[in-house]
Parts: sequence; C-alpha cells; structure tokens
Amino acid sequence: MLLRLLSSASRAIAAKPHPPQTLAAAAVGATSTTRKLAAMAGNREAFRVAVGNTLERRLFYVPSFKIYGGVAGLYDYGPPGCAVKANVLAFWRQHFVLEEGMLEVDCPCVTPEVVLKASGHVEKFTDLMVKDEKTGSCYRADHLLKDFCKEKLENDNTLSPEKVEELNHILAVLDDLSAEQLGAKIKEYGIVAPDTKNLLSDPYPFNLMFQTSIGPSGLSAGYMRPETAQGIFVNFKDLYYYNGNKLPFAAAQIGQAFRNEISPRQGLLRVREFTLAEIEHFVDPEDKSHPKFSDVSDLEFLMFPREDQLTGRSATRLRLGEAVSEGTVNNETLGFFIGRVYLFLTQLGIDKDRLRFRQHLPNEMAHYAADCWDAEIECSYGWIECVGIADRSAYDLRAHSDKSGVPLEAHEKFAEPREVEKLVITPSKKELGLAFKGSQKMVLEALEAMGETEALGMKAALESKGDVEFKVCTLGKDVTIKRNMVSINMEKKKEHQRKFTPSVIEPSFGIGRIIYCLFEHCFYQRTGKTDDEQLNVFRFPPLVAPIKCTVFPLVKVEKFDVVAKKISKALTTAGISHIIDITGTSIGKRYARTDEIGVPLAITVDSTTSVTVRDRDSKDQIRVEVDEVALVVKEVTDGQSTWADIMWRYPAHTALATDEEEASET
Amino acid sequence: MLLRLLSSASRAIAAKPHPPQTLAAAAVGATSTTRKLAAMAGNREAFRVAVGNTLERRLFYVPSFKIYGGVAGLYDYGPPGCAVKANVLAFWRQHFVLEEGMLEVDCPCVTPEVVLKASGHVEKFTDLMVKDEKTGSCYRADHLLKDFCKEKLENDNTLSPEKVEELNHILAVLDDLSAEQLGAKIKEYGIVAPDTKNLLSDPYPFNLMFQTSIGPSGLSAGYMRPETAQGIFVNFKDLYYYNGNKLPFAAAQIGQAFRNEISPRQGLLRVREFTLAEIEHFVDPEDKSHPKFSDVSDLEFLMFPREDQLTGRSATRLRLGEAVSEGTVNNETLGFFIGRVYLFLTQLGIDKDRLRFRQHLPNEMAHYAADCWDAEIECSYGWIECVGIADRSAYDLRAHSDKSGVPLEAHEKFAEPREVEKLVITPSKKELGLAFKGSQKMVLEALEAMGETEALGMKAALESKGDVEFKVCTLGKDVTIKRNMVSINMEKKKEHQRKFTPSVIEPSFGIGRIIYCLFEHCFYQRTGKTDDEQLNVFRFPPLVAPIKCTVFPLVKVEKFDVVAKKISKALTTAGISHIIDITGTSIGKRYARTDEIGVPLAITVDSTTSVTVRDRDSKDQIRVEVDEVALVVKEVTDGQSTWADIMWRYPAHTALATDEEEASET
Repeated sequence: MLLRLLSSASRAIAAKPHPPQTLAAAAVGATSTTRKLAAMAGNREAFRVAVGNTLERRLFYVPSFKIYGGVAGLYDYGPPGCAVKANVLAFWRQHFVLEEGMLEVDCPCVTPEVVLKASGHVEKFTDLMVKDEKTGSCYRADHLLKDFCKEKLENDNTLSPEKVEELNHILAVLDDLSAEQLGAKIKEYGIVAPDTKNLLSDPYPFNLMFQTSIGPSGLSAGYMRPETAQGIFVNFKDLYYYNGNKLPFAAAQIGQAFRNEISPRQGLLRVREFTLAEIEHFVDPEDKSHPKFSDVSDLEFLMFPREDQLTGRSATRLRLGEAVSEGTVNNETLGFFIGRVYLFLTQLGIDKDRLRFRQHLPNEMAHYAADCWDAEIECSYGWIECVGIADRSAYDLRAHSDKSGVPLEAHEKFAEPREVEKLVITPSKKELGLAFKGSQKMVLEALEAMGETEALGMKAALESKGDVEFKVCTLGKDVTIKRNMVSINMEKKKEHQRKFTPSVIEPSFGIGRIIYCLFEHCFYQRTGKTDDEQLNVFRFPPLVAPIKCTVFPLVKVEKFDVVAKKISKALTTAGISHIIDITGTSIGKRYARTDEIGVPLAITVDSTTSVTVRDRDSKDQIRVEVDEVALVVKEVTDGQSTWADIMWRYPAHTALATDEEEASET
Repeated sequence: MLLRLLSSASRAIAAKPHPPQTLAAAAVGATSTTRKLAAMAGNREAFRVAVGNTLERRLFYVPSFKIYGGVAGLYDYGPPGCAVKANVLAFWRQHFVLEEGMLEVDCPCVTPEVVLKASGHVEKFTDLMVKDEKTGSCYRADHLLKDFCKEKLENDNTLSPEKVEELNHILAVLDDLSAEQLGAKIKEYGIVAPDTKNLLSDPYPFNLMFQTSIGPSGLSAGYMRPETAQGIFVNFKDLYYYNGNKLPFAAAQIGQAFRNEISPRQGLLRVREFTLAEIEHFVDPEDKSHPKFSDVSDLEFLMFPREDQLTGRSATRLRLGEAVSEGTVNNETLGFFIGRVYLFLTQLGIDKDRLRFRQHLPNEMAHYAADCWDAEIECSYGWIECVGIADRSAYDLRAHSDKSGVPLEAHEKFAEPREVEKLVITPSKKELGLAFKGSQKMVLEALEAMGETEALGMKAALESKGDVEFKVCTLGKDVTIKRNMVSINMEKKKEHQRKFTPSVIEPSFGIGRIIYCLFEHCFYQRTGKTDDEQLNVFRFPPLVAPIKCTVFPLVKVEKFDVVAKKISKALTTAGISHIIDITGTSIGKRYARTDEIGVPLAITVDSTTSVTVRDRDSKDQIRVEVDEVALVVKEVTDGQSTWADIMWRYPAHTALATDEEEASET
C-alpha cells in the first residue's frame, strides 16, 4: 500500500516482487468505509469540481500543451500556482535546510543506467499492465480490477454477503497480487477494455522510467530519474568528508522526478513529472537519538499505528514523545522528522484535523526498512500520501557500495583501542593460480568476501575432509577448494576505530500533492449578494499566498493613481509581491477577484492621505496612513503580527456598501 | 556565432541551415587576437586550475555519478554551489519577476514531439558529427577542425602568411560551413580521430535533444525540452487572458533544459543538463517603447555593436539611452532589458569591466529576428555568452498558431471604428464540391489562405482567361480554378479592432554559465604566512554568498560554546544562513576555511559579553555586543549597510596574531 509517487515507496519496491499500486486510503479499512464513502461521493465530487474549476480558470494549473490537445499526466503551473509552489519550496528550504543545517545538493535528472540498476529501479520499478487485444490501448491491471470491485460494491444491490466480502478482500490485498493472480481475477470477472469492451492481454510488467540515451553513440542507456535520492547516495563519501567526517548529518535535494505512468489520473496527484523535495539523514545505526527531539516531543496529532490499522480502529491523537518512548515510533530521529513534517504542513495551511501519520503495515515495508510513516492528507480523493518518512537502514548505501566498489561508510574513532576477535581469510595466490589459472581472481575474491558463518563452515570442512565445494557466483559454478588454498582463522586484533554503513532516515515530500491538498483545504465559498451567487475564496496563509496584497484606487482619478503607485513602490522596496488593479470595475468585484486567488490583504485608495486595508477572510477593514501602509502589510504578511493584532491598533473602517453588493453589481 | 546553450540561439537555428557551433569570442576578431591569446594561455590555464581545484575540493560542484566513473557533461552542485545557485535564482525572481510584475509559469521538461516540430527543433536542432571509422567514437566536426586550426596557428612556426590567413578565415567562418565544406576541410587537412588516429566518417547531423517515449504504448515520441521558452509560447492565449487581454506583458520561467552534446567540454560551460531562466516579453510590434526605459537609460557599459565587430574595433563604453536613440539598439524594450540584465549581473558580483553586450552579426541572426544582443562575460575560456537578449518578432507564436490551428494573437480595440480596404475571398462551396469532391475542403482552405498579391493575381487571371492553375500544398498538386468557383474583391469595411501577432523580446539566462563566471570573477589568492602559501578567497557579495556568517568560539570552553549557540539562535531567527565551527583548530585556519567558500563575515566568541566580527576581504575586525551582533550581521548581509558603514560605528579590534600566521600554524 505504499504510494508510488514518493521515493520511499519506489525504492521499497526494489526489494519486493510487485510494486504497490493504489491509494493507501482506498485500501486501508476498505471493508468498513466503502459504503460510507459512496454516500459522500456526491458532495466530494461537487466540491472537487468547484475547486478544480476555480484553479483552472485562475490559471493555478492547466493541462500542459493544451493547444495541441494536452498530454495526460503533465500540468503547467500558471502564475498564481507557480507563486504558491515557489513559496512552499522557499519555506521548505527555510524550515528544513537552513534551520537544521542540512547539506543541500542539486544533481541532474538524466541518470546513467548503472545507478538505477544498483538501486533496483531498472529491474523492479514496474507496474502491471494489460493491453486491449485489438487496439493496443494500455491499462493498469490493478486499476481495472479496483474499478470493477468498487463499481460492484457501490451499485450492485444484488450482491450476496459472501460476494461483498470477496470484493472487499480484493481491494484490501490488491497491492499484493501477482501478475498471475491479477490476470486470473480479470478473466474470472470478465473484465474488458473500458472504452472498446475488447478482450485484454495477460498482465505484464511495464517499467515506469522514461528511458533515453546519453551521448551520440546511442549505446549508453540512461533514464530520467524517478526520484532525487540516488543523487545524494552516490555523493555520500564527499558529503561525509564535507561534514568533517562526522555523523549524523542530513543532505537534501529539491528537483524534478519522472514516472511514465500507464494511465495518469486524479489531476495533480498522479502525474508523469513532478517536484520532489527529499532529505537523507545519515545516522549511526547504533545511536538514533536526536539532540533536538525535545523541541517536538510535546506535539500531539493524529497518528495511525500499525496495530490500530490491523485491529480496525481509527487514527487517534498521540503525543509524539510517548509514541517514541513506547516504541510505536522506532526511534527519536524518525520521531523528530515526523514532528518537523507536522509543523511544516500545518504552517503551510494544511488542516491539522485532516492530516494523519500512518505507519506502514509489515507487508508494505521493504524487508530492510526499520520503520515507515506516511503523512497522509485527506482531500476529495480520500487520504493521500504526501510525505513518506522512512528509516531505510543501510540498504541504499550498501547497494551503491556493492555496485561501484567504492566503500560508502563512516567510521568512529575509539577513545581507547579495543581488542576484538576477527575473522582473517588468507587465500594462497600460488595454489589458486595453479588450480584455477584464468579464474583465480574470481575465486580469490569470492573467498575473501565470505561472511563469518560461511568461512567458519569452510574451515571446519577443510579440517575434517580436506576439501570442500564452493560456489563462485561470478563464475556461475562450484569449484573445489583444498586445504592448502586458504587459511581461515579467528585472530585477536586491536582496533582503533569502528567502520560501518550509516543508516538513512528519509523524509520525502511530493510537492505537487501537498500543494493540491493545500488548495482543497484553503478553498471555500461564501454567498454573494444573492443566495445563488457563490464567491470563491482561498484562505491561504500569507506565507504561501501567491500575492500578498493588492492596491485598488477606489475610482479612476489621477490623484488616487499617484497614491497607488507610491504605495506600490514602497511595497516593492519591502519585498512584498502585489498587484495594482486600476480597472474601473467596482471595488466589490475587485475584492472578489483577488479573494479567488487568495490574496490576504487589499489596500483601497480612497483619499490621498490615508487608505483602507481589508482582510480577506473577515472582510474587516481598517484605516491606515499612506506612509505607514507598506509596513503594516509587511508586518502581517511576514507573520510578525496577526490581523487581530493590527485591528486593535488602527481605526476600523465601515464601508458604505458591502463587498457582495458591489460584487454583484457588474 | 550564436552560442547554443541559450534558447535564443537554439531557436534561431530553426531558420538557418546549420547551427552555430563555437564560442563567439574565439571567432570574432580571431585574426588579430589568436596569437595574443596563445601567449596568455599559460596564465589563464593556471588560474583556471587554481579556481577549479578549490571549487571541486570545497564541493561547489563535482562531476555527477563520480563513484561510477561519471558521465561527461553532467555535474552536481554540492552544498556551497547549491546555495549560490539558490541565491542567484532568488535574486533573479526578485529582480525580474517581482519588480516587473511578470507572470511566472512552471511547465514540464517532458515535451511531446508536435511542440518541438512546430518550433523547428525536431528538424534543425542538430550539430554536425563525425565518427571514428573503426571504433565508432563520435566527435563534433567543427571542434576537430577548430582544434586543428588553433593548434597549427599556435605551434607551427613554419606556416606561410597565406596559410595563417587561411586558417584564421576558417576559424572566423566555422559556424557557416556546411556538412560538405566541413567534410572537405577535414579530408584536405588529413584530420583523424584524436585518440586513435583512425580515419573519420563524413560529417552528418545529430539531433541534440534527448529523445524518449511518453506513455506505455511506445508510440508517442517525446523529448526532454532543450529550452523552457516553448512552455510559455503554447500558453500565450491563457496568459494574455490572465493579463486582462492587455499588452505588453512578460511571462517568465526557471527550469531545467537538456541538450545531448556530442562531446561536452569546458566544465560548467557546456553541459548536457542545465538551468535556464527565460523571459518572454510580448509587445505590440507597432509600439516597442517601454515606460520604465528612463530608469536605465543613463547606464553606461561596454557595448560591442555589429559595426564595430565588422570593422575590427573593440567594445566601447556607451550610454544606453544613446544606443537606443541612435538606433544601435533596435528599440526601447530591448534596451530596457539590456539595462536590467547589466544591473542583475553586476549586482551578483560580475566584474563590469569583463562584461560586454555584443550585438549579433547579420549572419548570426535568424531572418525573422529584429535585433539580438548577448551579455558576454570574460573568463579563462574567453568571452562567454551568458544571457541572450533577442527581439524574435512574431516567429514563435506564428509557428505554434500554424501547427496547432489555435490563433495566438492579440487585439487592440479602436476608440473609433476605422474604415479599411480589405481583401474578401468567397469560395463557392457548391462549385468546388462538384469539381473536387473529396478534396474540396483542402482546395477551399487553400483559396481562403491566399495572401493579397496572390489573390489579386488570381482575380486578374480569372477575369482575363477564365481559369487558372492553383497549387494546393495539402494535396501536393495543382488544380484548375474556374471563374465560378471563387469571388475575389477588395471591399471597404469598418473595423472596430486590430488583430495582430505580438512580437516577443526574449532575455534568456544560462544560470550555470553565469555562476561559473561569477566563481572566476570572485576568486583570488592572497599570500599566507610564508610567501609560497597561497590562501584562496571568493569575494562573493553577501547577496550570493552560500553562507552569510560563521560563528567561532575562540577556544574550546563551555561558556564560549553557550554564547555561540545563543548567537546562532538569533541568526536563525533573523533568517541568516550560518555555520558554527567548534573544532579546536586555530582561529586563523578557521578563517581561511570560510574565506575559501566566500563567507563574508565571521563572528569570533572571545568573551561572554562582546564578540569580534571580521570582514572577509579587508580582514578588519570590530567588537560588538553579543545581543547586537545578529542585527549587525543582518544589516550588512541584507545590503542595508556596507562594512564601511559598520566599521565607523563600532570599535576596531586588533588581533594579536594575524590570520595568516595562525592559518599556517597547524
């Protein structure tokens, strides 16, 4: 049930036979909630259409290449969307990189095959696909089966209780079905191609990476990276050195990632190109405490531990400190990041009551992972995984160490040297050379690479029998090792330091998903002058609002324009993004226009000495001197003061006409 | 002589048979300067090695995927490089997008083929390549010829004056050579593969775009965008509407672009993936004035007009206002952007004496372009095009209008309707249907699409002869048009508005190139304690410095650490990026370390009440109270005060030991 948009998931699958396919929320607790969801679906759908229409009409985002008919799964951010995105990323950099002193890097999207072979993406980063046998159209096999089950559950009142249970069971285990199992179910239920009703092929794996070729020869395969994390892992050695050879430290990267989805849907939630922001926090596996954990340990929010999911309970409010001390969350560092992610999302404007941290179920996690939690945000599509926070142990660094031959490890110097028993394997080059000639190097390396158990087994066999069969993977066969070819002993040694592969704790943010959920959480409608007129508002916090302030001359006269320009200049100097609207449109209509793109404050120039400032959400107005107004706006939009603080200091202004009356005028 | 890293160049070539290939500086004035350059080459090379070593050692940037042997033309920005890049982009957004109220958009890198067919990239975005006939290794044909000529000119003292002239001529016209001419020269001079000395193939075009496939069917070709501009052009209609259907307005985009260079070289200057920041300013072709031109008209800087290049003069200081009023620069809007680019680059820290604006020669420009100027920055590789500023007329919008069938145009409402004579072509559907049956639609469209001259010619022919042969491109043949099939007349009409395709003025910034030149311009070495010890310094302005401030407890004692942490907290609150260095290393060595990554200010904690603040470049120190120091640092790094302002307000601190002495201690 991992979400594949985020890297934690994508890499998790490198160790799992089949990638997880569906929205976590749709599967978790599906048995009990599917029918309830069906009843709510109408409202959700209407809300989604209202917010979607506003977003597209105001150019927050639009399908890319629209004049050419568009391309599924590709979107452009228009001016307000682009500004929101830039604000979210700037805050991310402030909140994580600067406040925690992380090492930010910036690596290319074009990635040579060898890197993604090491990470497992070339082999395993796949979805199961079926083809329309006549037209060749492609579909995700699990999507078709899921749609079939949901449609039946929602609309077929003749289903027997056994059938309901069967279909719910399929929804719950959808991610774990093999190609064969999926194919069998599709056949059993007679599922056909949705558009043509033609028969479908058997499911087969389709790699989701965009493939390309690097350089002019055409011989060097490359891919567009499916996540940014690999760029950090391959730089571990340099970054560790940069950090003074000290652990822990975190590296971070913001950048584009690419996944050639089979059939993109759900707007910004499942796309073919998207911005990820990822942190890789490297830590000694023997000490995952965090010096700043106490800064977040008192936070309380919705958590959904594994146990509660398995026993059918719902998410509950937990204190983070207790979740860690009681072992629900594996360690302090993981807990620290969960807390920081909570603060990040809620400060952006995500509703804390529609945000939960859900722990991965045992079968969702890769075998090497110590613990994983997803920050899930509820929107009209259900609970959406927006941030994955995973303790991935040493998996990634080991994979690249093995493939590249470059050790990616850390070391801890001991205050005093320690005496340890150590396995020493000493092959005899001379004897190996005589016995194996051209293959001697491969045999030698394989002998040296033996683990302790295997080596001690060989030692025992050689001592008792004199020879032993030994599998050399690089030769693809067994060879016979004799007593004179290798000596194996446990020896006492003094060690001055400990070498180890660090664990990595990875918070990975799907920026587009967070932004889409933010849009939904900030959107509301209020009634205009007439009951059937609905005015759209985005209640963005100043931090993320695409534009902080608008300046409106009340009527079109020269002297007001002069004041408006003067204020605009002062706002520019103060670094506050704003627009002047000097169209002759009624002031109410101009307010409505800027409410719709979420501008927090509007300055209306109705005299040459003082102006009014209006708050978007309360619609309250105050009167402020012209020379002072830029600073007042800065105070609120920088977050130094709230609107309430400001209200108290300045005289209220009562407009003759309400917004809505004027909004409806023209 | 366009540089292909920037989009103006890449699109210019869509209308030229062969893409330009070389560094402008290497060709312009090559005759007179080649020998001089050769003499300077030693120093330049040494400087480049010194700055390059520092950049790589301190992780400003490193070759990507180093542990796997790297990939030519791909680089990672490490922590300080990434911070510089983020600062440059933040300032770009402030200086252009916010100050000029531009509409910023964010479009995907994955681009369907149809878009890049319309723009001309699929057909013409190529370099000429030759292959080693035995190994298949690929080389850029022009690079081999250029290297051959330069090597001869620099090292062969036996050349006749005629041969010198011939080789210099080749360098000057290199960009204009056809595949056949390049091939002939390679044969004539006996140029062979550099590594193997094998024979080379004939030159043939290689498309520089990374190709991929969108969606699972494998049938939908796509490319990684070679520039960001196309994303803006295809959105023109929506953006124009967003701007209230008013011109002029500018849209902007920052993003990754990709070019599969045949043989990348020159480090960050010619890479396979890079960040572009592009502006498309849409303007009425009949009015290219700019209301804010007077803000920049008094600027004076090095300009290199076409005339001066052709007559062998060098760049001279011109006042921008005069350059525009005298027609050297085509129009005010182009001039405005030249001025704004000058301010942008010099405020970043680019040396104004090594920055020039070079006008394109007639043969460099696409036929449709009105005027083009490149901001070129001199570095150890010569003069490098870093920003292209082009008036591209209506080319791009027309290309997408034609291909998509969606009109991308603006309109101007007249205050009073105007009477105009207008060509009216009225085909008779009935007669065309009878005559051409299935082809009638193509014939009808071709008739309606005739220009005025062609239509009037047809009218005359029909009146005199009764019929006329007419070429229908979409049918690929001529058809016979008779008098009854079409009526053609000039009619008087009242027009209420004018429709037109806007011109676009495009400043396009190669961010990686700007950053590399900035590194070179900010780098210097100063002598340490001993004469042979060279200490490296980057004199980054606070605006771009990767870290604004460091905090050093002078010696390792608890009470100083406490003060350092207190100051760190105040700096974080003030939003100032900083690092604490509590290693026991000597203070001089710690200063040297941070000078090497260009940190402007260092705070040394040597008491619990006051601390010293040291300026990187002058090495002057002042003494400031602990509670005040964060604000002092903020004042300087925000640019509100200079170091000189601050020096005057606080007591100077004279260190017992100089930096260098201590730096050399350990």
